[in-house]
Amino acid sequence: MPHTYKKSIFAAAYFPTISPIKGMHIFTANSGVKYKDRDDLLCVHFDDNAVTAGVFTQSSMPSAPVDWSRAAVNKAATTKFLIVNAGNANAFTGKAGLECCLDVGHIIADKMQIQPQQVFQASTGVIGEPLDGKKLAESALNATQPSSFEDAAKAIMTTDTFAKAATTSIEISGETIHISGIAKGSGMIAPNMGTMLAFIFTDARIDQPVLQKLVTEVTQESFNAITVDSDTSTSDTFGVFATAQTQTQIKTDSDITLFKQALMQISTDLALQIVKDGEGLSKFITIHVKEALDNQSARKIGLSIANSPLVKTAIAGEDPNWGRIIAAIGKSGEPADRDLTSVSIGDTIIAKNGAVIEHYNEAPVAAYMQSSEISITVSVGINQGQATVYTSDLTHDYIAINADYRS
Amino acid sequence: MPHTYKKSIFAAAYFPTISPIKGMHIFTANSGVKYKDRDDLLCVHFDDNAVTAGVFTQSSMPSAPVDWSRAAVNKAATTKFLIVNAGNANAFTGKAGLECCLDVGHIIADKMQIQPQQVFQASTGVIGEPLDGKKLAESALNATQPSSFEDAAKAIMTTDTFAKAATTSIEISGETIHISGIAKGSGMIAPNMGTMLAFIFTDARIDQPVLQKLVTEVTQESFNAITVDSDTSTSDTFGVFATAQTQTQIKTDSDITLFKQALMQISTDLALQIVKDGEGLSKFITIHVKEALDNQSARKIGLSIANSPLVKTAIAGEDPNWGRIIAAIGKSGEPADRDLTSVSIGDTIIAKNGAVIEHYNEAPVAAYMQSSEISITVSVGINQGQATVYTSDLTHDYIAINADYRS
Repeated sequence: MPHTYKKSIFAAAYFPTISPIKGMHIFTANSGVKYKDRDDLLCVHFDDNAVTAGVFTQSSMPSAPVDWSRAAVNKAATTKFLIVNAGNANAFTGKAGLECCLDVGHIIADKMQIQPQQVFQASTGVIGEPLDGKKLAESALNATQPSSFEDAAKAIMTTDTFAKAATTSIEISGETIHISGIAKGSGMIAPNMGTMLAFIFTDARIDQPVLQKLVTEVTQESFNAITVDSDTSTSDTFGVFATAQTQTQIKTDSDITLFKQALMQISTDLALQIVKDGEGLSKFITIHVKEALDNQSARKIGLSIANSPLVKTAIAGEDPNWGRIIAAIGKSGEPADRDLTSVSIGDTIIAKNGAVIEHYNEAPVAAYMQSSEISITVSVGINQGQATVYTSDLTHDYIAINADYRS
Repeated sequence: MPHTYKKSIFAAAYFPTISPIKGMHIFTANSGVKYKDRDDLLCVHFDDNAVTAGVFTQSSMPSAPVDWSRAAVNKAATTKFLIVNAGNANAFTGKAGLECCLDVGHIIADKMQIQPQQVFQASTGVIGEPLDGKKLAESALNATQPSSFEDAAKAIMTTDTFAKAATTSIEISGETIHISGIAKGSGMIAPNMGTMLAFIFTDARIDQPVLQKLVTEVTQESFNAITVDSDTSTSDTFGVFATAQTQTQIKTDSDITLFKQALMQISTDLALQIVKDGEGLSKFITIHVKEALDNQSARKIGLSIANSPLVKTAIAGEDPNWGRIIAAIGKSGEPADRDLTSVSIGDTIIAKNGAVIEHYNEAPVAAYMQSSEISITVSVGINQGQATVYTSDLTHDYIAINADYRS
């Protein structure tokens, strides 16, 4: 009997209205791999001239589709097909894993009269089980009924408790450029279903190297600034697909800045939705780090706090145990001046210059800890580096989801 | 109402019989700082010529006693006094924290007619609360009733559910050398009580620099090879005190090797007892890593597996979810060749050369997962590095201890 997951208290109230994006066509299908009663396969056909930028897991045990798509993004000038399946990650599957990707790529390429590297592949789900590429490719090619963004977001879900999407538009040279994305993920990894996947689509016309640079930069402050349980997936994939349907090419500094801001907005929105569906969460936590050596060091300190089981359990228990935050800064391995370090929870300064403030009154902080959204700010007295990191708390439900039910 | 902790199922059945060690005198006392109904203060007086080696937390937020004792070990030729209090860590206490250590050092030194740096100090307990050094020093000096190793081990306990000690002896040049130690710790940190402390005492005669080198080396494969919850304390302290009561000086290579082996035995024994008292544990887990770049890389891979919440919860749930082990290797940041990586649980090889073995039968592995001691072996196909790492699982009781009760 599979575990049914309680819907996150932070779930979006409704799925956003997303305008169609010219130059792309969404299809979903049921491949029958794991889920029998829902679509588990997302396919997107792109018209000519769509370019793709991708950022992939840093795991030394990447899944076969990660290997495939990392190479495809480098080799192919344009992308024609995106295929994503949920339920089997095709990770740690050896030669059979590669053969599955070859089958998917070649069968689709032959049928569509394109190059195999024009097929971008991603998979999420269980690790170590063989996946039938022929079956996937056939299901993908048989999907001919157009689907919506909402269908797409639902088809890639695994342990997710709500479908995740975000949309915006900008004006450049009098033209409207649409930027819309979907994502899935609820543990950074839960190999018996898990992984973070995010796909953003835009009708913008932009050179691939420029897009790749923007996507890499945007990832740092969005998807790389979130953590649920410190576990990085073998399959994390973030792809941005630009269909080149607008007249104007995004190439001036000011247009690039505008486009990057929109990309950042959608990426951050999707990243926060993933945290807000964190396995078993009861609190959404924002951690601001200031006065670090540089922004990267600040992010590492923030992640050290965010990943500390003792900080996460204290917040779950609504305990303003700020000593655990100090200990988590200390263990980060990043420069921090203890005697200049300060800590605030919510708007209350608790400790400053290496010690608790005089006449510290815990009562308002204890009351604040009962909120569903908790903000922590630390300053470490080294330099100007800063970062914001987002995470969830660690609860009995996390243990229940990950220990009490067999995969 | 304070939480009472269930005694660990791995608790030692009885406290070992430990012979007195010449040149040292144990006293315990109740300082009244936190615990009212038990001794919370350990004092050891050393005769002349005792030397000390120490290894301290790598936290950038070290407690005041860590600052003090790290300096004392460097400054003082010999140690005369060890004072350890449980219940208040004197960490993140600013100037007041330093003044507490100065008070303790100077009051004891004046009374005993020794140098302040001959007083080795350690504290464990809550972070951020002021500690009264005068009170500690007076309690310490008033303790005149000799105590046993068992009294000593009990006096330094916080959330520990059993007193931890180990003892051995070796023969060098016809003389018996005694080596006995005590330790406390049950989360790597639980700042509302916590921290790892270990003290080993020996009657050996050995130069301080030689002792320091041995202690540093031994720490790598004992205390640095264990983890409960990945959280490093502000106060971790490991001190080895040699009272120089034997005639023979340990200085030949063969004598040093023999002595180092005994130190390693006691350190590892104490380290494993700390894991076996890990907060809320239901399983004791040993992780062997082979074929890593070097031993340090192997240890990092082992700790990445040991600290993975998803591995720890899978083991708590008796789920042979080996995909989570693969993911934890992958996220370690250490070199690993996916296509040469293998994983065993217990004696069963599950995956080899980057994929599950043919005809893998999960049934015997699922049965093995019901054992209270679980062994995992991974080989990562890079080089000859190896390491063994020890940890506990992540259970509802861990959450209960750390989230359900206010500190």
